[in-house]
Amino acid sequence: MAAPLSRRDLEFLLYEWLDAEALTARTRFQEHSRETFDAVLELSEDLATKRFAPVNKLGDQHEPYVGEDGKVVLPAEITSGIAEFVKAGLTAGSFDEALGGMQLPTVISRASSAWFQAANAAMSSYAFLTVGNANLLAEYGTPEQIDTWVRPMVEGRFFGTMCLSEPQAGSSLADITTKAQPQSDGSYRITGTKMWISAGEHELSENIVHLVLAKAPGGEPGVKGISLFIVPKYLADGTRNDVALVGLNHKMGNRATTNTLLNFGDGTHTPTDIPGAVGYLVGAEHRGLSYMFKMMNEARIGVGFLATALGYAGYQASLEYAKVRTQGRPVDQKDPASKPIPIVEHSDVKRMLLAQKSYVEGALALELYCSKLVDLQQTGSDEEQARAGLLLDVLTPIAKSWPSQWCLEANSLAIQVHGGYGYTKEFDVEQYYRDNRLNPIHEGTHGIHGLDLLGRKVVMADGAGLALLTDTVGATIDRAIAEPDTAAFGEQLRTAVDHLVATTAAAWSTGDPAVALANATTYLEAAGHIVVAWMWLEQLLAVGAKTGNFYDGKRAAARYFFGYELPKTRTQLELVAALDRTTLDTDPAWL
Amino acid sequence: MAAPLSRRDLEFLLYEWLDAEALTARTRFQEHSRETFDAVLELSEDLATKRFAPVNKLGDQHEPYVGEDGKVVLPAEITSGIAEFVKAGLTAGSFDEALGGMQLPTVISRASSAWFQAANAAMSSYAFLTVGNANLLAEYGTPEQIDTWVRPMVEGRFFGTMCLSEPQAGSSLADITTKAQPQSDGSYRITGTKMWISAGEHELSENIVHLVLAKAPGGEPGVKGISLFIVPKYLADGTRNDVALVGLNHKMGNRATTNTLLNFGDGTHTPTDIPGAVGYLVGAEHRGLSYMFKMMNEARIGVGFLATALGYAGYQASLEYAKVRTQGRPVDQKDPASKPIPIVEHSDVKRMLLAQKSYVEGALALELYCSKLVDLQQTGSDEEQARAGLLLDVLTPIAKSWPSQWCLEANSLAIQVHGGYGYTKEFDVEQYYRDNRLNPIHEGTHGIHGLDLLGRKVVMADGAGLALLTDTVGATIDRAIAEPDTAAFGEQLRTAVDHLVATTAAAWSTGDPAVALANATTYLEAAGHIVVAWMWLEQLLAVGAKTGNFYDGKRAAARYFFGYELPKTRTQLELVAALDRTTLDTDPAWL
Repeated sequence: MAAPLSRRDLEFLLYEWLDAEALTARTRFQEHSRETFDAVLELSEDLATKRFAPVNKLGDQHEPYVGEDGKVVLPAEITSGIAEFVKAGLTAGSFDEALGGMQLPTVISRASSAWFQAANAAMSSYAFLTVGNANLLAEYGTPEQIDTWVRPMVEGRFFGTMCLSEPQAGSSLADITTKAQPQSDGSYRITGTKMWISAGEHELSENIVHLVLAKAPGGEPGVKGISLFIVPKYLADGTRNDVALVGLNHKMGNRATTNTLLNFGDGTHTPTDIPGAVGYLVGAEHRGLSYMFKMMNEARIGVGFLATALGYAGYQASLEYAKVRTQGRPVDQKDPASKPIPIVEHSDVKRMLLAQKSYVEGALALELYCSKLVDLQQTGSDEEQARAGLLLDVLTPIAKSWPSQWCLEANSLAIQVHGGYGYTKEFDVEQYYRDNRLNPIHEGTHGIHGLDLLGRKVVMADGAGLALLTDTVGATIDRAIAEPDTAAFGEQLRTAVDHLVATTAAAWSTGDPAVALANATTYLEAAGHIVVAWMWLEQLLAVGAKTGNFYDGKRAAARYFFGYELPKTRTQLELVAALDRTTLDTDPAWL
Repeated sequence: MAAPLSRRDLEFLLYEWLDAEALTARTRFQEHSRETFDAVLELSEDLATKRFAPVNKLGDQHEPYVGEDGKVVLPAEITSGIAEFVKAGLTAGSFDEALGGMQLPTVISRASSAWFQAANAAMSSYAFLTVGNANLLAEYGTPEQIDTWVRPMVEGRFFGTMCLSEPQAGSSLADITTKAQPQSDGSYRITGTKMWISAGEHELSENIVHLVLAKAPGGEPGVKGISLFIVPKYLADGTRNDVALVGLNHKMGNRATTNTLLNFGDGTHTPTDIPGAVGYLVGAEHRGLSYMFKMMNEARIGVGFLATALGYAGYQASLEYAKVRTQGRPVDQKDPASKPIPIVEHSDVKRMLLAQKSYVEGALALELYCSKLVDLQQTGSDEEQARAGLLLDVLTPIAKSWPSQWCLEANSLAIQVHGGYGYTKEFDVEQYYRDNRLNPIHEGTHGIHGLDLLGRKVVMADGAGLALLTDTVGATIDRAIAEPDTAAFGEQLRTAVDHLVATTAAAWSTGDPAVALANATTYLEAAGHIVVAWMWLEQLLAVGAKTGNFYDGKRAAARYFFGYELPKTRTQLELVAALDRTTLDTDPAWL
């Protein structure tokens, strides 16, 4: 079985490109060294390949179900694998030492996580939702909340969720109806139904810490009236809280992650005399959505990593297959008595592998780049922090949506390389494809991120976000143009970035958001390709004049991306700039 | 549940555009009328929606298996539904009356079939493989073979298969090793293993007629040494032939169609004293592949229809969902107290629906156009027959591959319109997506059709095929340019067609097939978009000045296709014309 990620590529990205080692000069990471980073990465690779990857198919085939005792049943191998992950301390990655964490740079802890995501996407999500939940509470919780809920999550004894959507309110959080009633003891009683809650119920941890959006009295309508609550499955004293599993969703993929419909406060359990699930306010009332964005933004990068990891695993599997499977002859070799060649030698198979490579390695570069921004945001000078935060804001919709689209396409190509075998359950690639199809849907649909990018991120603060992005990309382009090997790519990317900037202005030229945003998804997709082209130019600069197959592979994938992919943005941006009204003008009755 | 196809659209395409009724003026179809056509279509719609669609999920969830008696078990509802289809006489569609057929035009019998393909793709394949098999034998079989094997297939008592691939030879038929030994009684003994045989074993019919490619002694190496044999599961006297089911493949989708590994002549059964499965030569020795192309080309259009039908079913389902699901508000409406709107009113949802509509209705037009070419090929003047045959040759790789790519994309968009619901098994769209993923693989992979189009079809007979295509499209463009409403689309398509022609010449400018074909898949995809744009222009001309939602829908989808899709061909053709060597120059060791 092919390794689901490439250790060599991770080392290149982390050390030859992003200079992660330099982070150890910062106070926060001064206890660390290249050796401690590598120890974590090697442990992750080892556990992921030995305990997560071998049960990936099992988790797909044995979907979680509710047993006679009302408890969720997962295959024993999933449970024991997660226990081993917890025992190895890997939930503690980037948390403060004061909380029991390893205080690793995010770029390292994310790279560690990527091994598990690539090995077994569905199984990995329990832990990584927990990390996001604990990060939010570590920032906005009270010291008591941190002691009670965060520490056990850092230890891996408690797991966490995020509860946003409701049956009538998926993408539209303004319309949530879950209610929170304040009580005299400072707690709240929560009532309502939450939908699509990943890891919402299971027996993998001692407790489950739900972070729940709900409306407390006195708030404005819409998102400004939303507050955030901790609603644990068990209260601190062990009493069962009134959080009831209504049902498990049966999905096309990602099946080992339970996905739940939860009732809060329906009376299934009665923790106190007052009806409702016991909840504890996080921060101030009516400010909940702004806190939740901490976890949502982290989860969005997490989804980007998940999509990337699945794409990567498919690339590795199809590459391995293409090297051993023989079939056919070169198109200019007609002699049927000649020996069939490995399919990796056919141009079209090379095209499918180069496309995958350019998608998954480009996406991994983007996700790690964003992760390093988190580290700069946390440890840099004030100016560095502000810049990193702003750039991360602009890049987040792309970091979430681009891999969700293109690493899914990579998975489709991985099936195609396998031919009929790829369509069967004997091989792994069809599961990657099914698992990955979730990613354009959750944590903000693809279309929502288009609205976020064009409607908010590139126009906020008078366009400061877009300006910072173009400056940052521009600095890369300047370096590229100074080198003969990369000059042409630099020029090509400059043209594309200029086109993006002009298109952004054109989109907003009428000032009418309905017109500006009519083609926001097309804009998102073009911007994504430009950003990933930038990531490839960055990688090429890191490659420099180095020799060997690995570096030649980077050169070939970059050439593919600039030759086959980046040109697509031209017609996309032309459409956006022309303020094409096809969708606006279409009456639903015509469909 | 939404209807899986649109009766209104079929009527438009058949009668308002293709003038199928005019076929009744031809001698072959003179017994028919609009009424008999409509009776078949209504019967098909009725049976498909009542007996096929309701068990689509069942067939997916209860995959066929081999029972203790060694027989394949399918759900009883699948078996009874197919029996009802047979009883209604629908296997007999386009066959000669002399063979017990209805002698319908192919364009009508294909439209009838499309209802079943859309309602239950996997269940439909048993019958439609049988039709292709019987069509081949009706053309190339002896009178005795026709009486023995074709008549029972027309009656639906026997089903048929095509057995080409082998474990070591998928796309490369030159490398098949199944052997045929001639016997003194004129029969052959067949030994070998065939892979990926759809409907290769089941209990749905009294007998299964396998059409098997094998090598008889004395043939040249490669495809010129291939002969074609009838190898029935049961001989005419009822003796079990030596065709043994080795195993069923477990697939991501299309699960109700058994997909088998078959051994011929492994001694499991002993029909005669001489080892091997009894086979009967079709036509002459060593000419087998040319006969098989009759069935393969028909099967390729059939796969195009299958992909289209699945895309169509997804479009219909997501359109219905988008009209009833409310969520969010217009982007220029900020008041959270205003009522949520049906999601069909959001621009991005309209984009996803228009894209699906443009793909599936464009593809259906193409498939029906090709089907009418079959009718012209069968009933026209000598010149008409020759032109129809040549045009069909050129269009076949596109008719197979374009819907397989874009109607799959339509299914992905259908999931996306449903949000999280679309990813669950409670809704139908995830199954359509899984079912459709097969279509770029079988009956010639996507890449093979690129080689076929650029390597053979557009260059054969000094480019006569391409010239005929451009003349035919040119005639449509001339008509379009004469009308104010369609003139701009006509001009846009003319530019694209000119670009295609110039690119074809550029691709072959070095004369080196390795260079010419390095980007054959990109060429195929661009040519496909140009052909489907032509189909949309044809539809617009058929719409003319007619008024009403249906026709406005056609106008909107055409506008979408010319605005969002056709421009993609520009950069694709530029890449091909530039003789981009990225794939050629990439050493497999770099990947």
